[in-house]
Amino acid sequence: MEDHVYKKIEITGTSSNSSDEAVQNAIAMASKSIQNLRWFEVVETRGSITEGSIDKWQVTIKVGFTMKG
Amino acid sequence: MEDHVYKKIEITGTSSNSSDEAVQNAIAMASKSIQNLRWFEVVETRGSITEGSIDKWQVTIKVGFTMKG
Amino acid sequence: MEDHVYKKIEITGTSSNSSDEAVQNAIAMASKSIQNLRWFEVVETRGSITEGSIDKWQVTIKVGFTMKG
Amino acid sequence: MEDHVYKKIEITGTSSNSSDEAVQNAIAMASKSIQNLRWFEVVETRGSITEGSIDKWQVTIKVGFTMKG
Amino acid sequence: MEDHVYKKIEITGTSSNSSDEAVQNAIAMASKSIQNLRWFEVVETRGSITEGSIDKWQVTIKVGFTMKG
Amino acid sequence: MEDHVYKKIEITGTSSNSSDEAVQNAIAMASKSIQNLRWFEVVETRGSITEGSIDKWQVTIKVGFTMKG
Amino acid sequence: MEDHVYKKIEITGTSSNSSDEAVQNAIAMASKSIQNLRWFEVVETRGSITEGSIDKWQVTIKVGFTMKG
Amino acid sequence: MEDHVYKKIEITGTSSNSSDEAVQNAIAMASKSIQNLRWFEVVETRGSITEGSIDKWQVTIKVGFTMKG
Amino acid sequence: MEDHVYKKIEITGTSSNSSDEAVQNAIAMASKSIQNLRWFEVVETRGSITEGSIDKWQVTIKVGFTMKG
Amino acid sequence: MEDHVYKKIEITGTSSNSSDEAVQNAIAMASKSIQNLRWFEVVETRGSITEGSIDKWQVTIKVGFTMKG
Amino acid sequence: MEDHVYKKIEITGTSSNSSDEAVQNAIAMASKSIQNLRWFEVVETRGSITEGSIDKWQVTIKVGFTMKG
Amino acid sequence: MEDHVYKKIEITGTSSNSSDEAVQNAIAMASKSIQNLRWFEVVETRGSITEGSIDKWQVTIKVGFTMKG
Repeated sequence: MEDHVYKKIEITGTSSNSSDEAVQNAIAMASKSIQNLRWFEVVETRGSITEGSIDKWQVTIKVGFTMKG
Repeated sequence: MEDHVYKKIEITGTSSNSSDEAVQNAIAMASKSIQNLRWFEVVETRGSITEGSIDKWQVTIKVGFTMKG
Repeated sequence: MEDHVYKKIEITGTSSNSSDEAVQNAIAMASKSIQNLRWFEVVETRGSITEGSIDKWQVTIKVGFTMKG
Repeated sequence: MEDHVYKKIEITGTSSNSSDEAVQNAIAMASKSIQNLRWFEVVETRGSITEGSIDKWQVTIKVGFTMKG
Repeated sequence: MEDHVYKKIEITGTSSNSSDEAVQNAIAMASKSIQNLRWFEVVETRGSITEGSIDKWQVTIKVGFTMKG
Repeated sequence: MEDHVYKKIEITGTSSNSSDEAVQNAIAMASKSIQNLRWFEVVETRGSITEGSIDKWQVTIKVGFTMKG
Repeated sequence: MEDHVYKKIEITGTSSNSSDEAVQNAIAMASKSIQNLRWFEVVETRGSITEGSIDKWQVTIKVGFTMKG
Repeated sequence: MEDHVYKKIEITGTSSNSSDEAVQNAIAMASKSIQNLRWFEVVETRGSITEGSIDKWQVTIKVGFTMKG
Repeated sequence: MEDHVYKKIEITGTSSNSSDEAVQNAIAMASKSIQNLRWFEVVETRGSITEGSIDKWQVTIKVGFTMKG
Repeated sequence: MEDHVYKKIEITGTSSNSSDEAVQNAIAMASKSIQNLRWFEVVETRGSITEGSIDKWQVTIKVGFTMKG
Repeated sequence: MEDHVYKKIEITGTSSNSSDEAVQNAIAMASKSIQNLRWFEVVETRGSITEGSIDKWQVTIKVGFTMKG
Repeated sequence: MEDHVYKKIEITGTSSNSSDEAVQNAIAMASKSIQNLRWFEVVETRGSITEGSIDKWQVTIKVGFTMKG
């Protein structure tokens, strides 16, 4: 079996609805330009507040994908 | 443009329903006494367990708001 | 009041649906063999990706329970 | 059961006698102005030295208490 | 010598000019409402960018001061 | 000399008297079921508060012991 | 309001003059090839020394910018 | 596809020869009593020294395996 | 002397043979598309296990290289 | 007022009696060869175990002292 | 090319003027007794406050230099 | 049994061949001037790259040894 090499990039997804959806939005955007996304790791969860309630969840993840030679 | 100063406080919200709701409850409580809440950062996620299932989500956040001179 | 001693174990729950459900699945599995689960702490949130969307949430928690003498 | 919200503050107690007493002094002082202190977490232990022996233990803790609505 | 107790608060100063000035602005603001500020610790340095150059330095510090009984 | 393998478990001892005694209680309990305890590392020190003074010290340690083949 | 996605890259700026200028140099270089830089976070500050004085400040930052779909 | 749950244990392998072999020794020992080992993560690398050269590499890893219901 | 700017990317190399070779494989792959690689920093060492022995070492590194204007 | 420079060294004190005494022993030893010790910071607390109880507390501290020109 | 060995020491420089100057002061002092200083890494930035403004910047760095055999 | 005190110093070994040899080189150099080296802890692993392959492994360790009174 071959020795693969993976690259990780760091992206921040946002969502008005939930922290999980912020992750999904980040992955959906990354998958438009990168194929072979393999895994993600949550790095930071934060958000903006407007008038005493959450405006946007902002979740930063690292996404790993197979590097092509 | 003016140089604002912000203060951050650390609060722990709880919820029987979800980790996201624990954050919302923390922010809702803080907004009763503090105006101009601007952002939050999740610091720790934990919870209590009763009879083998989650009793309360306990999510600690830092909340930032504009300091008045 | 007695001086209790607690043990913590580290487990990773998975779920196709949500990060919260991954925690619940981990606790449900642990409670099959361990009684007196008392609390959990989220240690790491990651997941696998298939065709540009989340395949499995993988959430690692520490679970604490009362040790018997 | 209600969803409580807790606030944490960070204080540094000092003592000429022991690290444990520095924690106790910090909690005793905090309890003068805050009711319903619930738990503490040790954040940092340091101290000053005079003529080759410990002058003051300085222990920083976070103290959690119930927020009132 | 008395066993003092200190409180630390976390504030974020901003400045268009320099990271050091952001710290000074934070301390100047805190000293308007708190006496006996004793020391600070830099926690995080970040900033906003406009048109390819730094708009505002945002430096978060903890500030310690003597608690009164 | 043989290449030993060690296992570490994470346990939380409690004590009404001191942080050191909380560690001793944790080790005493662990030694009831595990032989060959070799070393410990303090991971976290916290505690509960009742009426403005420490109710229980809660100290989490990792304890290492020799694994048998 | 739309759910934006941001990407962060990690770059190290250098300067013979000051730590702040090392950050500015890093941002200036990044802005040549990337539009819509939004914020930065300082990750590490180090430097080289020649003949007992600072030769180059080397400041590593993460820079965030809006990802295009 | 089923939602698996994994458990992680922390073990320290030792070797007179190399850091990699210390990891292999730890895994070999763990596999005597645990089936379905799936992955490991290096947590800490240290060692003992005798007469100015390395006596034993001591590498602590976490090992993950599938929990059975 | 000019003020260079460096970029760091995060990649994971794998190897069936050793942790060092996993690093070398990561660098070899990165050097196919990036010139002027200058240094690396090991971020995480993990691996997969098959039938009680190491299947693949997976070592994540950051690699720094000179950015061109 | 002059701009002092301080040096910190890292030492590990041991004690059969208590964690605090391990710190005191470390400082006492350091003060034999270094004058002007000013402060200490606890870095790590661990210990050895013999027959199910603590043999030696091992507390690592950093000690700061004034550097002479 | 020879395999050099470097030593790092930890020192805290102070300055009434700026955080950068505190670093420079630390390096200048270290270079009085140590030759071949090669690089530094900023570890911590703090300071003392007098009457609501910064009295001394206190910046702790590690300084690396070539060890002689 | 006596209460020993240990000192730790931080050194960086380099090697063209392997990460393990970089550690060995660091220890060999330290043992030229310090007797009674007892243990080491790996703090950081990095290296320089030349023409797409590793030039030097640079491994930073802390080395502990018995302090003499």
